[in-house]
Amino acid sequence: MSPMQKLTEFLESNRVRNFILSVILLNAVILGLETSKQVMERVGGLILFLDQLCLAIFVAELVAKLIAYRTRFFRNGWNIFDFIIVGISLVPAAQGFSALRALRILRVLRVISVAPNLRRVVEGFVTALPGMASVFLLMALIFYIAAVMATKLFGNAFGEWFGTLGASGYSLFQIMTLESWSMGIVRPVMEVYPHAWMFFLPFIMVTTFAVVNLLVGLIVNSMQDAHQEESVASTDAYRLEVNAKLDALEAKLDLLMATRKD
Amino acid sequence: MSPMQKLTEFLESNRVRNFILSVILLNAVILGLETSKQVMERVGGLILFLDQLCLAIFVAELVAKLIAYRTRFFRNGWNIFDFIIVGISLVPAAQGFSALRALRILRVLRVISVAPNLRRVVEGFVTALPGMASVFLLMALIFYIAAVMATKLFGNAFGEWFGTLGASGYSLFQIMTLESWSMGIVRPVMEVYPHAWMFFLPFIMVTTFAVVNLLVGLIVNSMQDAHQEESVASTDAYRLEVNAKLDALEAKLDLLMATRKD
Amino acid sequence: MSPMQKLTEFLESNRVRNFILSVILLNAVILGLETSKQVMERVGGLILFLDQLCLAIFVAELVAKLIAYRTRFFRNGWNIFDFIIVGISLVPAAQGFSALRALRILRVLRVISVAPNLRRVVEGFVTALPGMASVFLLMALIFYIAAVMATKLFGNAFGEWFGTLGASGYSLFQIMTLESWSMGIVRPVMEVYPHAWMFFLPFIMVTTFAVVNLLVGLIVNSMQDAHQEESVASTDAYRLEVNAKLDALEAKLDLLMATRKD
Amino acid sequence: MSPMQKLTEFLESNRVRNFILSVILLNAVILGLETSKQVMERVGGLILFLDQLCLAIFVAELVAKLIAYRTRFFRNGWNIFDFIIVGISLVPAAQGFSALRALRILRVLRVISVAPNLRRVVEGFVTALPGMASVFLLMALIFYIAAVMATKLFGNAFGEWFGTLGASGYSLFQIMTLESWSMGIVRPVMEVYPHAWMFFLPFIMVTTFAVVNLLVGLIVNSMQDAHQEESVASTDAYRLEVNAKLDALEAKLDLLMATRKD
Repeated sequence: MSPMQKLTEFLESNRVRNFILSVILLNAVILGLETSKQVMERVGGLILFLDQLCLAIFVAELVAKLIAYRTRFFRNGWNIFDFIIVGISLVPAAQGFSALRALRILRVLRVISVAPNLRRVVEGFVTALPGMASVFLLMALIFYIAAVMATKLFGNAFGEWFGTLGASGYSLFQIMTLESWSMGIVRPVMEVYPHAWMFFLPFIMVTTFAVVNLLVGLIVNSMQDAHQEESVASTDAYRLEVNAKLDALEAKLDLLMATRKD
Repeated sequence: MSPMQKLTEFLESNRVRNFILSVILLNAVILGLETSKQVMERVGGLILFLDQLCLAIFVAELVAKLIAYRTRFFRNGWNIFDFIIVGISLVPAAQGFSALRALRILRVLRVISVAPNLRRVVEGFVTALPGMASVFLLMALIFYIAAVMATKLFGNAFGEWFGTLGASGYSLFQIMTLESWSMGIVRPVMEVYPHAWMFFLPFIMVTTFAVVNLLVGLIVNSMQDAHQEESVASTDAYRLEVNAKLDALEAKLDLLMATRKD
Repeated sequence: MSPMQKLTEFLESNRVRNFILSVILLNAVILGLETSKQVMERVGGLILFLDQLCLAIFVAELVAKLIAYRTRFFRNGWNIFDFIIVGISLVPAAQGFSALRALRILRVLRVISVAPNLRRVVEGFVTALPGMASVFLLMALIFYIAAVMATKLFGNAFGEWFGTLGASGYSLFQIMTLESWSMGIVRPVMEVYPHAWMFFLPFIMVTTFAVVNLLVGLIVNSMQDAHQEESVASTDAYRLEVNAKLDALEAKLDLLMATRKD
Repeated sequence: MSPMQKLTEFLESNRVRNFILSVILLNAVILGLETSKQVMERVGGLILFLDQLCLAIFVAELVAKLIAYRTRFFRNGWNIFDFIIVGISLVPAAQGFSALRALRILRVLRVISVAPNLRRVVEGFVTALPGMASVFLLMALIFYIAAVMATKLFGNAFGEWFGTLGASGYSLFQIMTLESWSMGIVRPVMEVYPHAWMFFLPFIMVTTFAVVNLLVGLIVNSMQDAHQEESVASTDAYRLEVNAKLDALEAKLDLLMATRKD
């Protein structure tokens, strides 16, 4: 066995997998404790050291995997996922922007790539996405059109909500989630533009209907998947069996008739 | 090939379709840029010119299609859709109402009629509508009755929310979406009419239940459609095959018996 | 044909049905116009007269139906529905309470009993109810328990929201619909009782989960109904046919074997 | 029959079951009346006495069941449920903390363990939970990561909402339910951190999508359960029958051919 194969076997062993899982969970606890000022005042140095240690272990694991798998490493989506997450953690460690430092907690997402049942749930999410691409595209189109219209119609009087395309997009997203849409936004707007409901009510109806269609599509898709896995296999086997038996019967009857005529 | 046929072929060629799609997307970007004051100050003339150019291209395409298809043009729903959308754009160009000018962005909706996958989503939406007509009619009835009652009961004390049939309808729509229904509307109303919850709680329950039924109907319908398309075809083929084989067996047996008796 | 049969036929004829439907719709418009002060100032007398006329027609129809069907009248749920609705309209006409007067608009609900497609939707709603009785009972139980607890725990400090069982029930309904539950109610409560979230978060989760289960139950039920109506009939017919053919084949083979042995 | 068997039979008889159900419902009414100050001022002593009496009956029933079933008592989940609920009621009776006293109303939950149809609904809820364990775990992970990030990013400026991990978790739960997420929280945060929407919008989308997936999973699961119970049994029986008949036909044909060759 080559050293490469040994390394691969070692990296894929249950012992290493469980060790990495423990490090991830430990890191999650450490990053959680980092949010407490009291804890940081007392044992801040230890916390930061342990965090660096966890990161070092992740980097070591990634480097070992890169050595073991070489270019095959990037063929697995979950490897790329781990690579990006650890990479993000390295940037703030070097630069120290507070916003980037907060991204370190994303490392805990590595639990997903290590735990098979979480992996399956996320893979389920991701495989559901392409089927919804058309509806998403349509939603994006509706949002863009509605944002341009809202900016033109209400931008001058309500700059905070509809002053720019971005502000309009955000406000329309809020309206789509139905949060304070009427009391917070549409009623005040209607005091200046009394016909504003002619824009907002259709927008709410159309986007809600599109979201409902997304939901219906998801349900129908997973129902079909579940249905096929379960029943189609047994049905197909049964049908093949019946057909084979009927063909055998016919062949024998033919034989009987042929011998008869002799 | 007549010139009409040539024109039809040219209009339906992929090159023309892609060109029109590009013009629509360019127009979308231009109308988006028009919302930015900075951009308009610098290159406003160019933006307006390009917008007019896009519109001119759409008009030219429509006129060409009208010449090529004549009365057949209006048999296709998507042609009528394009015709109305471009028509709307021409009105404000002539008159210049700011509200009508904002409608020009609706032109971007033409992406739907050009892109087949978006077309299919919208066609799916539209075919789902007739099945929901009865529930919509019932909802309209409930809204009308509730609006009349709310106006009579609370109109005097809460003119802003329930002063007219229209105001009541809008407020009831807001209550149906559950936005600020209690803190914003029903609690204040209950300070004057302590029994107001006897009107609003049943209204919320009935409309929510009706919406849920719409959703359930949609799911069941698309499930059945999906189910039929997929499995019924193969089941029917199988059943026909089995029946044919059984009939063949019987015919042969009959023949065997007939020859036997001779 | 007896006069009773003639009356029954007349009442069930399309002409009478359409006439009653027109009267209902006219009445709906009249009661809608009644909410407008301007209209009432100008033609208030006419409006009130037409309303009384509509009511008189409904009463006449009901009396005729009572004469024609006698006790059978009350065996049909929709007749009882009409009877109650017209009855409600007669009470305020006599007494004149403003709240009771507002109930007259309920007469428009008679459209449901006259229009067959609306009737079917409502019958669908009603037949779905018994299947949900257990979940409703459970919800009622959860609400009662939560209302007693909330009144005991927060009643003293927040009398307006949780002072009595009724106030708590209303507030919990508001919280279940997620309207202002946190900003409006739970955050203020948590300023006095910091552990209040231990009561409200489980309440939200349990009631939301119960509502979701209601929805799931509804979907599964109507799916099964749809499924059975559609495919079971054809499947059963096919299976009977195959079985009959197989039995016929066997009978013929038996005959063949019997004649052979001779 | 041993005295143990007699006791078991007595405890499981319909008379005892109905008596216990009546006591539970009486207790529910008593604990409801306890929330009314007027009632307590007049007949407070009686109310408290009746409550103690109900509790005594429950304790006596539990002790009798423990004697009758011994260790088997704890093999039934519903017995453990009753045991815990009555146990909770005994603690506050001894100590008298007001919060613990409010827990006495939980006794009414015993209705569930006594009424079979409510029992079935709750068992349905509980059996649905394991299938959702992975999604719940993922949600917990997302919440933990988001809470750590929110605390680090916005904790300093918005201590009330994101000051500690617990506060962030609560605020994120509120945001997930879409209650005042924008007007109440994200817009104020965006005034200090203009890019805060880059954190909150993805959070809303991911958690909403996860909740939707929970819902879809629930629907698909109960649909499959319903589907299997109903149709698979009859299909299997039919298939066995067809196969048996085909085998019988083949055996007879074989016999015919064998006799023929003689």
